[in-house]
Amino acid sequence: MSRSLTVGVIGGGQLGRMLGLAGLPLGISCRFLDPDVDACAGRVGELIVGAYDDPAALARLADGCDAVTFEFENVPVEAAAVVGCLPGAAALRRGQDRLVEKRFFRELGIEAARFGTLAETGVPALVKTRRLGYDGKGQRRADVVEELGPDEVAEAIVPFSRELSIIGVRAQDGETRFWPLTENVHTNGILQLSRALVACAHQAAAEELCSRLLEALDYVGVLAVELFEVDGRLLANEFAPRVHNTGHWTLDAAVTSQFENHLRAVLGLPLGDTRATAGAVMVNLIGRVPPLEGLAAVPGARVHLYGKQARPGRKLGHVTLLDPEVGTEQRLLELIARQ
Amino acid sequence: MSRSLTVGVIGGGQLGRMLGLAGLPLGISCRFLDPDVDACAGRVGELIVGAYDDPAALARLADGCDAVTFEFENVPVEAAAVVGCLPGAAALRRGQDRLVEKRFFRELGIEAARFGTLAETGVPALVKTRRLGYDGKGQRRADVVEELGPDEVAEAIVPFSRELSIIGVRAQDGETRFWPLTENVHTNGILQLSRALVACAHQAAAEELCSRLLEALDYVGVLAVELFEVDGRLLANEFAPRVHNTGHWTLDAAVTSQFENHLRAVLGLPLGDTRATAGAVMVNLIGRVPPLEGLAAVPGARVHLYGKQARPGRKLGHVTLLDPEVGTEQRLLELIARQ
Repeated sequence: MSRSLTVGVIGGGQLGRMLGLAGLPLGISCRFLDPDVDACAGRVGELIVGAYDDPAALARLADGCDAVTFEFENVPVEAAAVVGCLPGAAALRRGQDRLVEKRFFRELGIEAARFGTLAETGVPALVKTRRLGYDGKGQRRADVVEELGPDEVAEAIVPFSRELSIIGVRAQDGETRFWPLTENVHTNGILQLSRALVACAHQAAAEELCSRLLEALDYVGVLAVELFEVDGRLLANEFAPRVHNTGHWTLDAAVTSQFENHLRAVLGLPLGDTRATAGAVMVNLIGRVPPLEGLAAVPGARVHLYGKQARPGRKLGHVTLLDPEVGTEQRLLELIARQ
Repeated sequence: MSRSLTVGVIGGGQLGRMLGLAGLPLGISCRFLDPDVDACAGRVGELIVGAYDDPAALARLADGCDAVTFEFENVPVEAAAVVGCLPGAAALRRGQDRLVEKRFFRELGIEAARFGTLAETGVPALVKTRRLGYDGKGQRRADVVEELGPDEVAEAIVPFSRELSIIGVRAQDGETRFWPLTENVHTNGILQLSRALVACAHQAAAEELCSRLLEALDYVGVLAVELFEVDGRLLANEFAPRVHNTGHWTLDAAVTSQFENHLRAVLGLPLGDTRATAGAVMVNLIGRVPPLEGLAAVPGARVHLYGKQARPGRKLGHVTLLDPEVGTEQRLLELIARQ
């Protein structure tokens, strides 16, 4: 038996679970730290129940691990640093504060929507909390210029034609690889579906943009950047220093998934091929899950359930359609809507 | 959370392990029965340590399961019957005895090599034990006509141009699906590699042959049939009433793998699409495993390690190459040979 490898993961949600599943065939075990005893990653690896910043729990997480990483960007920076997480603190620090993140884009010459005070953006604009917002939470629309709170930042509303995202991975030796861009559709601020764009004209520009972030952060692991397409140009919206919902399709339709390549990167292994093997549309299962019989009957459907308790607005699973024929995506969406 | 399903599996080797891994994203848990406390499937599901025919262990295995199946064809027929295994006893009984198997082929009009006594086959011929042979064990060559033991059967040596296999799956409602044929190369009686043949001229004939077996056995689950290509015709060699080494490529290069479709079939779920999404060559890792760093660096390589102790002649893992470029297969084989 070749030596098995262990990766510690701060967080035990579905992203951790899919990292764990990706590791198993490679002889890589993931061990998770999560305050929730029912964390869904706990069914695919050891679960340490504890606070993300509990020094004793962090020490147990890291004990004997070949690498430590995280599956959500709001892990306390100090906690991540103390166990030597990859990606490193530079990425976490910049990703956790929208204002710092946008200034960082500007520093790197990456175009983004105007931001700052409402006087700077003009109105109407979006006002977002600088920290801890996700899935559309912590956002409001402002129609008159007013003073913002210290934890708020305004963003100009951009008339985008599409939302896209680029996912890249950087190895410890600096090699980078990128998956094909995806086009993303959000509903009520939550990602509803992503379509892999196998020959998108923006691919090279998106890779160049993502590369700047990867290099500037001396990054190791998977990085996702959400983009707006505006008048044929790309504006950066935000980045996530982790595996990303818009990359779930890579589990079924790329030679190497984002989850496997993230593990490879943090462990210092060579990166795998990021080529797409099929057309793919990924649809989230939010709040409720149709019966497995129904999902399994959709042609070309790859079903991923996270084993989480149903709750409105909660991501409970996703389905990736491979090379869907006309009408199949609609059939799946109707099956989900009927729930 | 949708109701999770449980499948009991008699046997806890790598085939069980891969069934278990295929189930996890679907919310299907596998529970294994194996006499070996270190059975490698035990790391992906609950392991009951016990003899395959121990009534108490079998009862624990089946308790609360939605279906019970097996991952090797030599499970005692009575044990399988008592827990209502799928595939059923008809397939097991015929698959466990080479003489019964060959007579069954004949009954169904499926062409096979001459068999019986050495007088019937002529010499030289292969003499095989009727029961419990695998991976080339329990075989010898006979050059003179002699009387065989009661547990032996002779088989004419056929001048085959290629060894092929067809893998099919039949659902509880009788629907059948087939993966593309593979061409198989054995070394010292052990499968070394399989190549998926995406547009082979024999596909329709092989599916028809496999269908006859599936129908005659009122089969539920995955069935593999090994074939010889002789003068452009197909001769049946043997069948295996289970997921099969020559179908491991389907994990990475088919919409639905043999493992997932076996679970779907025994659980009464609709079958998934068996279409290939990429060209694939599957290479077994036998006896020793090269370092993960080396395997991960092979372009397009999907690595599957079983977590078993190394032992000469033991299947420890496999690597599937997706759409390999010229030279990649050779590079992988050399990497393995250098071990």
